[in-house]
Amino acid sequence: MDITKMLSGIRIDQSSSAPMYLQLANGLAAKIQNSTLSAGTKLPPERELVKLLEVSRTTIINAYRLLEERGLIITRVGSGTYVAEPSFTNQSSATILWEQLFTPQYKSPLSSLLRTLIATPTADETISLAAGMPDPAFYPLSIIEKALVSSKYDLEVSDFGHMTTEGYLPLRHSLAAWQSSLGIQAAPDQFLVASGSQQGLYLIVKAFVEPRDYVIVESPTYLGAIQALEASGARILTLPPSDSVNFEMLEDYLIRYRPKLMYTIPTFQNPTGRVMSLHDRQELIRLASRYRLVIIEDDPYSQLYYGQQPPPSLKSLDTYGGVIYMGTFSKILFPGLRTGWVIAAPQVINRLAQEKQHIDLHSNSLSQIILHTCLEEDYLANHLATVRMEYKKRRDAMVGAIRRFCSGYMNFNIPEGGFYLWCSITPPASGAELIRRAATVGVSFVPGEAFYTNGTKSNEIRLCFATHNEELLKEGIRRLGRIFASGAANAAQPSDLAGKPII
Amino acid sequence: MDITKMLSGIRIDQSSSAPMYLQLANGLAAKIQNSTLSAGTKLPPERELVKLLEVSRTTIINAYRLLEERGLIITRVGSGTYVAEPSFTNQSSATILWEQLFTPQYKSPLSSLLRTLIATPTADETISLAAGMPDPAFYPLSIIEKALVSSKYDLEVSDFGHMTTEGYLPLRHSLAAWQSSLGIQAAPDQFLVASGSQQGLYLIVKAFVEPRDYVIVESPTYLGAIQALEASGARILTLPPSDSVNFEMLEDYLIRYRPKLMYTIPTFQNPTGRVMSLHDRQELIRLASRYRLVIIEDDPYSQLYYGQQPPPSLKSLDTYGGVIYMGTFSKILFPGLRTGWVIAAPQVINRLAQEKQHIDLHSNSLSQIILHTCLEEDYLANHLATVRMEYKKRRDAMVGAIRRFCSGYMNFNIPEGGFYLWCSITPPASGAELIRRAATVGVSFVPGEAFYTNGTKSNEIRLCFATHNEELLKEGIRRLGRIFASGAANAAQPSDLAGKPII
Repeated sequence: MDITKMLSGIRIDQSSSAPMYLQLANGLAAKIQNSTLSAGTKLPPERELVKLLEVSRTTIINAYRLLEERGLIITRVGSGTYVAEPSFTNQSSATILWEQLFTPQYKSPLSSLLRTLIATPTADETISLAAGMPDPAFYPLSIIEKALVSSKYDLEVSDFGHMTTEGYLPLRHSLAAWQSSLGIQAAPDQFLVASGSQQGLYLIVKAFVEPRDYVIVESPTYLGAIQALEASGARILTLPPSDSVNFEMLEDYLIRYRPKLMYTIPTFQNPTGRVMSLHDRQELIRLASRYRLVIIEDDPYSQLYYGQQPPPSLKSLDTYGGVIYMGTFSKILFPGLRTGWVIAAPQVINRLAQEKQHIDLHSNSLSQIILHTCLEEDYLANHLATVRMEYKKRRDAMVGAIRRFCSGYMNFNIPEGGFYLWCSITPPASGAELIRRAATVGVSFVPGEAFYTNGTKSNEIRLCFATHNEELLKEGIRRLGRIFASGAANAAQPSDLAGKPII
Repeated sequence: MDITKMLSGIRIDQSSSAPMYLQLANGLAAKIQNSTLSAGTKLPPERELVKLLEVSRTTIINAYRLLEERGLIITRVGSGTYVAEPSFTNQSSATILWEQLFTPQYKSPLSSLLRTLIATPTADETISLAAGMPDPAFYPLSIIEKALVSSKYDLEVSDFGHMTTEGYLPLRHSLAAWQSSLGIQAAPDQFLVASGSQQGLYLIVKAFVEPRDYVIVESPTYLGAIQALEASGARILTLPPSDSVNFEMLEDYLIRYRPKLMYTIPTFQNPTGRVMSLHDRQELIRLASRYRLVIIEDDPYSQLYYGQQPPPSLKSLDTYGGVIYMGTFSKILFPGLRTGWVIAAPQVINRLAQEKQHIDLHSNSLSQIILHTCLEEDYLANHLATVRMEYKKRRDAMVGAIRRFCSGYMNFNIPEGGFYLWCSITPPASGAELIRRAATVGVSFVPGEAFYTNGTKSNEIRLCFATHNEELLKEGIRRLGRIFASGAANAAQPSDLAGKPII
């Protein structure tokens, strides 16, 4: 093989910060790995390379030595240097048996489902009604620029440096003001800014839950919460689906198991869209207060109401200080901001901050500055008005489409807010099976199994009406209808989700 | 007390999303808590409030009922409603004994030191040579705007939504290109974007280290790493301070203890500023490869060199695939971006992503978009040129000032890069003691104890020369000199750090 061809594309940049021998070695390594230089090929002798590349002999020697160490070439004394057999070249990645080194890991039947959902492309021809994402078309990009520009005037440049683990103080002040307008009175030292409410939940679980502790959740509930709780080794007690809280069962749990905490989404619950009544909220607080039950109130949707306003949050009714509130703007502004907050007693905030310090020191300062500016300059109010109006239209469009294309096959209640329609399928069919059928007609959703603990069967599916415009929603439902019409659903046998990709 | 005075400042906003009874209740609660309404004060009867506030009677009744539940007021039948005794009003915060509910927590003698450092204001009259922060004056704010503006053209708006846990794909591509220019050949699927390299380390420890596992670190080393490892329950083996790696001791450790991993900062080590020689790097890789030792290479400083370029990273010399590399721009751009990355075998990246998913789903998308644009448009190169020049001047200014103001009291080697001067004090004095003396003259630094495991004594201190300009550095050192001159150091007795605030 012609030496110049061998070296074609290999550049030695004297000014690069990478040593020249490394540049040469890596250039040759690339050619060997993509087989431009096949096994057995004889490499040019050092002195020729010295001439051709105008580098020192040491550079060539070091490059060859490195490639030899990497098992990519072999030197035969007296004969020359040759590209090694692939068997050697793959060695490096194989030498460490990683699985043997990893710590034992909790594997739920739902593992990786959430990541699959997040990774699901919503741009291609498949219409995804799965992931609970706001419509990117509503992301107020202008806010970001405005926030950063105005920041230049009213913010210290040092705000872009490190900050306290509890979060950007001006943001904690503006959050306190905003929450107070929503009925929660809390001082900035009762706030912790987390990297999304997912992290808030992770920190709370880390601070409170030990293996074999009991925790209470609604069934069905948010898949991310189930995963976080199960991963901690908690034993999960479930309150069955119902329009009102089953207080007899709850009190029985409290007496019998002394649970560490209860996780609830009282407003526009995920996935059911249910709203806990004011009476039930007050009753829950009374009971929790009597038994000193810690309540985790997850509240991502309460500001996304499309009819009458939901009742006040549990935290605003908290008479015993035991409610830990989790807020986020991920469903309102950008999920990508990854900025949520926890409101709790100062002792709790302090402990959560100690956990958070190990994890990421503090949350991203840019996002905190942006959110602070949004709150200060009241961008949020207008934005909320817009999305409430739009999402209401979309909810109605989806409902209309279902009645038109899927009538008789799906039952649901119309949610007064949030992102989801929770539908039970008649005749019953496994969601996982439906998913696979749906994929063939180009639509996706989350099967009900995803929202139940220990792989309970379900004949429900969750449809998100927030991500797409009305036309796409109608088309998505129309495609869904075809599955039912084709009777495929009847044929399907319930089967659990484990290991089966969602889309 | 005049009823209007009682209610002064309480606004009932009909348009607010907070129910009116809550607004009233919270308004009164605030006045009771700040004692504007003292215990025993009789509250106005419902009908009067109805007139005055022009709200329904139910609103008043609900407000009073809520305040009573909160223990803030009491109703005496036939007599009226009164502000309750403080003993009752404090009840709510006291009802839950949080400490009893928390999971057991590892407490190191260094606990909270890092947070104290981060929280230390560097703006007031105290000159902080403590925290390892780049000078905010160098934060390239313009980059942020440019990045976001140009983003609007070449980025999908949906990039601001959720993304895969492993990180923004375009960023993983541009990082791969950048790293390859520095000698590390890795495909995007070998990258995980973390919320700062602190999170990278947390994830690695979570994936590899179980209680009682052995791990190897250099001594002294980065305080955050010590905390993360100790918190995991690892048993820590230390390599003593030395200009070259003690391979006999290392191999003895490998044979005797089979450690899970070794954590090292080979380039401009924190705190010593040392650089591992190319020979030692190659020797370390050879030994690690033979024993299948996993190496965590923490590399925040290698691009901040002020003389000749440091040797190539361990990862670029990795012949067995066992090096896990951690990179970050926190010391180069903004610490507040909280965006670092891990380079490792795909199996490792996949496991780290599974851990990360529970913690925050994925890292902040804005920062990832900004960093991607910085790399794509090559802002970084110019910025690096600037800061290298500036920090070199500052290092020399600090060295000069020490020779002038502290000669005879401090010994150190001049580091070829990084942020720190690591000085041993003669005559020996406890860093903690020095710190307290220093505070009286308005200067701060990190005492050596902070960088050793299990509270080893130290007569060293770490001075950061990156955060302040030359004038401030000189003044800081001048103040330091006064302590020595006053002989305070001699008087000081070594004593450990536990519980003592750093500044």
